[in-house]
Amino acid sequence: MTPRRQSGRAPVTSPAAATVFTTVLTQGPVSRVDVARRTGLSSAAVTKASRPLIEAGYLVELDSEQGGVGRPASPLDLRTDREFFLGVKITDRELIGVVTDLRSQILVTKFHQLPSRKVDAVVDGVSEMVTDLLAESKAYKQRTHCVGVTVAGDVDRDEGFVRYSPFLHWRDVPLAELLAEKIDLEITVDNDVKAITVAERWFGNGVGADSFALVTLGTGIGCGLVVNGGVVTGSHGVAGEIGHIPVFGDGPLCHCGATGCVEAIASTDAIVAAARMTTGEPALTMEEVVTGARLGDVALRRVFARAGVAIGRGLASMANLVGPERIIVSGEGLDAYDLFADEIRDTFATQAFGAAAHCELILRPLPFEEWARGAAAIAAVRTLVIS
Amino acid sequence: MTPRRQSGRAPVTSPAAATVFTTVLTQGPVSRVDVARRTGLSSAAVTKASRPLIEAGYLVELDSEQGGVGRPASPLDLRTDREFFLGVKITDRELIGVVTDLRSQILVTKFHQLPSRKVDAVVDGVSEMVTDLLAESKAYKQRTHCVGVTVAGDVDRDEGFVRYSPFLHWRDVPLAELLAEKIDLEITVDNDVKAITVAERWFGNGVGADSFALVTLGTGIGCGLVVNGGVVTGSHGVAGEIGHIPVFGDGPLCHCGATGCVEAIASTDAIVAAARMTTGEPALTMEEVVTGARLGDVALRRVFARAGVAIGRGLASMANLVGPERIIVSGEGLDAYDLFADEIRDTFATQAFGAAAHCELILRPLPFEEWARGAAAIAAVRTLVIS
Repeated sequence: MTPRRQSGRAPVTSPAAATVFTTVLTQGPVSRVDVARRTGLSSAAVTKASRPLIEAGYLVELDSEQGGVGRPASPLDLRTDREFFLGVKITDRELIGVVTDLRSQILVTKFHQLPSRKVDAVVDGVSEMVTDLLAESKAYKQRTHCVGVTVAGDVDRDEGFVRYSPFLHWRDVPLAELLAEKIDLEITVDNDVKAITVAERWFGNGVGADSFALVTLGTGIGCGLVVNGGVVTGSHGVAGEIGHIPVFGDGPLCHCGATGCVEAIASTDAIVAAARMTTGEPALTMEEVVTGARLGDVALRRVFARAGVAIGRGLASMANLVGPERIIVSGEGLDAYDLFADEIRDTFATQAFGAAAHCELILRPLPFEEWARGAAAIAAVRTLVIS
Repeated sequence: MTPRRQSGRAPVTSPAAATVFTTVLTQGPVSRVDVARRTGLSSAAVTKASRPLIEAGYLVELDSEQGGVGRPASPLDLRTDREFFLGVKITDRELIGVVTDLRSQILVTKFHQLPSRKVDAVVDGVSEMVTDLLAESKAYKQRTHCVGVTVAGDVDRDEGFVRYSPFLHWRDVPLAELLAEKIDLEITVDNDVKAITVAERWFGNGVGADSFALVTLGTGIGCGLVVNGGVVTGSHGVAGEIGHIPVFGDGPLCHCGATGCVEAIASTDAIVAAARMTTGEPALTMEEVVTGARLGDVALRRVFARAGVAIGRGLASMANLVGPERIIVSGEGLDAYDLFADEIRDTFATQAFGAAAHCELILRPLPFEEWARGAAAIAAVRTLVIS
C-alpha cells in the first residue's frame, strides 16, 4: 500500500545514506573511518551522508579518545529513542502488541483478548491496541509514525492484503485499507514468519549473515529464508514452506493434500493426533501429551521422536539445497524442546550433505512478544528504507 | 586464481558500463532510451557508458528508423564475434570442447577421448583441446582470451581448485594452476552444474528470471539455483544438492551416508541397481533397463516410476522452499524422459504447496556440448565482469 504518512521519517534519501545508517544500526557505535572501511564508501561520502542523519537526531556522535567531536574517528551511534515503532501480531485468540525503539528493543508489551476472529472485531481490536500502546508515554505519541501488523498465512505486503489465513478463516481481506480508516499511522501488513525473519536479519541472529533461515514450530511449521542478502519471497508468492517438504515418503496425508510433509508429522496438531491414536484417548490435549512424554510414557516419547526426525530431515533438506550460514529453530512448538531436540540434531547431522553439516543450528524459544516485535521490525525496516 | 591476462578485455570498467553491457547482452538490440528506461540509469549515463564499448567494438550501433546513428533511439546491439570463448568439460571418459561467441552461441564442438583420469593426462588433454579449438580459425586465435574448464564435484572457483571430484577420483587438485603452465589464456575452473546454471541465467531459459533452478539428472543429481538474482553458492560451500533431499523417508541408504535421498532412488546407478534387484539379473546395463522398460516390462517400468516420484518430490521441496520462477530439468538421465516424465509432473503437482505449483517445469534434454558451453559461459561472464 501507499504509505499514508511521510512526516518524521529518517532522512535516508540516498543509497549512501541507507548504507551508513544500516551500518550504524547493525554495528554501531562505529567511527566514520570504520564505516568507510566496511562499506567501501569514501570518507567524504560517509561524512556527507551522516550529516543530515545527525541533524535529524537519528544518529549521534560520541566523544572519542582519539579525536574530538566531528573527527573521523568519533564513533557514530544510533539515537534509539528518536523514533518508536508499534507492532501488533494477530493470533486466533488474542492480539499481542509492542512498542519498540529504533534498534527494535521492546519497551512495552500488551496482550488483548479477541472477542471474535471476524474481520471487523479484529480491526477494532488492533485500533484499540494502538491507542493503548501510544497512551503509555508522551514520547511514543510524538515520535511514532508507523505500525506493523502481522498474521499467519498468505499476505501480499505491497497491497497490505491478506489473501488467505487458515487460522483466522480469512480470505481476501484488505487489512491495511481497513486499518487505515481507524489508525492515523503508516501501516505495514505482512506474514508473521517473514516479519520475524526481518527482525532477525536486522536486529538479531541474522545480523551479518548473508544467508540464514528462521524456522518456527507450532500449529504450522513455517520458515523465513534469507539468501544472497535478501528475504526469499518466492516467484509465485510461496517460499519457506519447510513444513511441506515430503520427508516421510508415503507417510501420512497432510492437510495441504500432499503426503509425508514435515507438518503432517511434527505440527502441534499432528503430534496430538498421533498421541491420541497411539493411546486410544481421543480427548488428549497437547499439554497432556507433553506432560505424559516428560513422565516417560514410551509411546508418547516415540511420537515426539518421530516429529524430531521429520524436522531434522526438513532442516537438512534446506541446508543441502540452500546452504544457509545458520538456522534458527524456534516457535511455540519449541516448548517441547527437550522431547525432540536430540532427534532434530542427530537427524540433521546424518542427512546433511558434506559441509552442509557445518550449518549452525540454533534451537531457542520464541516468547510471544517476539512475534509482535517482528511486526514492529517490518515497520521500522520499511520506514528506514533499508529493505 | 588471479587472471593471467587482462589484455583484450571488454572495457567494462564501471557499474554503469556493466549494466549497459548486460542489458544489451540479454535484451539487445535495444535503444539507449530503452536501456535507460529498463535500468533506471539516466540517458547521459547510458551514452557515456556505451561509448567505450562501441569504440572497443563490443557494442555496435544499428541504424534506426526513428533516428540516425548516434541518436538515443538508435538500437545498440552486441558484436557477437568481437571476442570468442573456449569451454572444456571434463568427464571421466572424454573432454568436450567448444568455441562460443559473445552471446554464448556454439561455433565449434570437439570431443577428445581421455586415455586416463589421471591429473597429468587430463591437463595434457585440455591443453591439446585448446590448441585444436583455436586452430579452427584465425579469428579465434586473435580474439580468444579466456577458457572455462568444468568438472563435476566440489570446486573452489576463486582458487581454481578441485577439492573433490568423485567420478574422476580426484582430491585437492590445483587445476587452474596446472593448466596455466600449458595454456596461455585466462583460465576459470568451476563446477559443471553451476556453470550450466550461469549459462542459462545469462544466455538461456534463465534470462529475465529473478529466480530459477536447473536440475541435472544422471550419475549424480545436481542443481544450480539462482535466487534474488544471484547463484546460490552455500555458506559452507554446499548448495543445490537436490539429490540429497530425503524424500523416501526410511528408504534406501544413499552413498552419502544418509537414507531416502532422491539420488538413492533416481540416479542412473540407483535405477540400474533397482532393476538388477527386481529382475535378478546382476549384469543389466542402463541401456538394457531403458529398452526393457520401453518394451513394456512392468517391473522395470515400476523402477522408473519410483524414480519419477522421487524426482517430483525433490522438485516440489525446492519449489515450496525457494519458489523459483521456473525449474529446468535436464541431463543425460533425461534420455529416459518418456519413462518417468508423467510421474515427475504428477508428483510435483500433488506435492507443490498452493501457488508453488505455478512454478514452470521445463523438461528438456541436455546435449553433451551444452556442458562445454557452460564452461565457456563462466569464462565469458567472468571476463565481462557481469557476475
